[in-house]
Amino acid sequence: MKLINENFIKIPATYLFSEIAKRVNLLQQQEPDAQIIRMGIGDVSLPLPDVSVDAMIKAAEEQRHSTTFRGYGPEQGYDFLRKAICENDYHSRGISMEMDEVFVSDGSKSDTGNIGDIFSSDNKVAITDPSYPVYVDTNAMAGRAGEPGETGAWSNIVYLPCNEANGFVPELPREEVDLIYLCYPNNPTGTTLTHAQLKKWVDYAREKKSIILFDAAYEAFITEENVPHSIYELEGAREVAIEFRSFSKTAGFTGTRCAYTVVPRGLMAYTRNGDAIALNRLWNRRHTTKFNGTSYVVQRAAEATYTPEGKAQVKALIGYYMENARIIREGLLKAGYTIYGGINAPYVWAKAPAGMSSWGYFDYLLKDKHLVTTPGAGFGASGEGFVRFSAFGSREATIAAMKRLE
Amino acid sequence: MKLINENFIKIPATYLFSEIAKRVNLLQQQEPDAQIIRMGIGDVSLPLPDVSVDAMIKAAEEQRHSTTFRGYGPEQGYDFLRKAICENDYHSRGISMEMDEVFVSDGSKSDTGNIGDIFSSDNKVAITDPSYPVYVDTNAMAGRAGEPGETGAWSNIVYLPCNEANGFVPELPREEVDLIYLCYPNNPTGTTLTHAQLKKWVDYAREKKSIILFDAAYEAFITEENVPHSIYELEGAREVAIEFRSFSKTAGFTGTRCAYTVVPRGLMAYTRNGDAIALNRLWNRRHTTKFNGTSYVVQRAAEATYTPEGKAQVKALIGYYMENARIIREGLLKAGYTIYGGINAPYVWAKAPAGMSSWGYFDYLLKDKHLVTTPGAGFGASGEGFVRFSAFGSREATIAAMKRLE
Repeated sequence: MKLINENFIKIPATYLFSEIAKRVNLLQQQEPDAQIIRMGIGDVSLPLPDVSVDAMIKAAEEQRHSTTFRGYGPEQGYDFLRKAICENDYHSRGISMEMDEVFVSDGSKSDTGNIGDIFSSDNKVAITDPSYPVYVDTNAMAGRAGEPGETGAWSNIVYLPCNEANGFVPELPREEVDLIYLCYPNNPTGTTLTHAQLKKWVDYAREKKSIILFDAAYEAFITEENVPHSIYELEGAREVAIEFRSFSKTAGFTGTRCAYTVVPRGLMAYTRNGDAIALNRLWNRRHTTKFNGTSYVVQRAAEATYTPEGKAQVKALIGYYMENARIIREGLLKAGYTIYGGINAPYVWAKAPAGMSSWGYFDYLLKDKHLVTTPGAGFGASGEGFVRFSAFGSREATIAAMKRLE
Repeated sequence: MKLINENFIKIPATYLFSEIAKRVNLLQQQEPDAQIIRMGIGDVSLPLPDVSVDAMIKAAEEQRHSTTFRGYGPEQGYDFLRKAICENDYHSRGISMEMDEVFVSDGSKSDTGNIGDIFSSDNKVAITDPSYPVYVDTNAMAGRAGEPGETGAWSNIVYLPCNEANGFVPELPREEVDLIYLCYPNNPTGTTLTHAQLKKWVDYAREKKSIILFDAAYEAFITEENVPHSIYELEGAREVAIEFRSFSKTAGFTGTRCAYTVVPRGLMAYTRNGDAIALNRLWNRRHTTKFNGTSYVVQRAAEATYTPEGKAQVKALIGYYMENARIIREGLLKAGYTIYGGINAPYVWAKAPAGMSSWGYFDYLLKDKHLVTTPGAGFGASGEGFVRFSAFGSREATIAAMKRLE
């Protein structure tokens, strides 16, 4: 008799966004004239850069003709894109990187979810709290999370609280952990780690033979000098870290789908007998067995973001959102709120007024100000008492929203 | 200390295509003037249908402007494509199908590989032999295959031999199995099951509470009446089967990437306690947690294949390859070979002359005729003694190849 993977049924359904939608719909019914401004989204609002559209159209035309048609491409991505990635995202920062360490994919959600395939289900996992829910959910599916408790916390996950008390800088775990998820600049808090703060984690991982799964999807939003763009800026990180990068937020590829994952050649994990095995080889095996490459036209669109015009267009996109972030920060500060983030990330993490919960604050902003945010508790226990404001909306809506808070 | 998933290191590296490449390169060095014709490929050679290129260009232009830009789409695929799939691939054949039973993806390789996530690693797996290597390899990664033996067979996989003796129709397994991989029209043999032959499997699965994972990637190549295009043509199949479909071979999407998987609402699997759980819910959870939707422009390209012009263009592509298949069949028969397939599939399965192995026959064709095929043994033990000819080449090359065998 066919059996299911019972880990799946332990995972509670995610009610966060459906609950938000329900409350927004209710308000819209009660107040049909309310001009609701949505600042809860993590999706971009500006269109694709022209260079990417042009490159996609050119590539699509190539697909029309026998002489230029491309069928199956390399599962790991075309050399033209892997080369552009190495040169522009790594070599330009003095980081050595070979093409065969870069695996192009259809998105970081796929990669951060699928990476678990190559690890034993016995590994102990540490995850910052609050966090992007995919890290927890995919480990739960693989049987690494243990059992879910009443508060929503899993018995076998080591949560790394990021809160006001520690300045949103997670402390090293007291128990030994094998896999550590870090996302910086952080979603949802918008905070970052400095070189020195990240170095502690790299050193810990080297000492304990742990792996850091470093999600750098928001790297392009960094404006400050002392914030690492890549974990490989840290000495020794190539021995302990896998890095995830995405074109989604950088270049507006949320609906176009392209990302990449770096697995350095020298990065090892172990068999039960203690034999060191190169993870690059295992991920290559996973990627070539369960994936057939990213769409050719999409890879050309991604490549175009590395041209001089492409870089200028991406910079303009990022600049637009970061000006929104500045407006949100300023508006919230003026209104007397305590806030974090928004300087190196498109998210501002706003503290609920004293005694108010995430959902209470959310409801207040929705009912009194007609603003939709995301309740921080939806990202984990340490998100309680906060909401996330997104800078991905239009300038006009962002300004209007802050006016309402004056 | 971080541990790897040790199942990965049990899987032997796939030398099939690298070994082929090595032998072809060697010949090219020894005989620089040899006009080598490649009939080993499973990739298409004709370009994308015009309708798909036009749709992609239109969609790319939409992505250029704020008013028409699309960010994250539904992970399961846009309704416009799911609707077109339901209507054209199912309703038109009298099969009921709801949109929420169809999950659009980036490819059948991903789907047939990832589907294992929702099943227990304790399920017993049956796989036809020879077969597409992804079925075996992904089950090996998940720990369902047991240990690899010296001959390459895994201790815990139930192989279902498809050979001349049984007319390439697998016999029902003697031991009970939970998951059954069937691919029809078959890759690599090019053979099919009739309605009656497939019915036996559906009945078996209903009786034993097994699941059939039905790979119908080559459905569009069916020319004969009594061959089912979908497993759901069989009564009761909705209770026991998941179906995989792809635009890769049908519409030349091998480099464009779009496929879909059908998980009927009523399809159940069980917990250890015997509770029935809907697999649609589990796959939806997997798909929304580890995947972020197929590229919008690609979904528009796929949708276009269902327009009247699109259908005509796809029909022309299929017709071209099937005429190649006819030429290959005729050529091989004339040359005195025993062959199978090629009537409802773009592959012809040719028997090596008496006493010759797969690789021996491959070498003979390469050295004496300068033809590249794929040795059947590369697809499993029962493929020994055969080679696969692909009809995906150009007409000119196909005709020239058969001339050399006269």
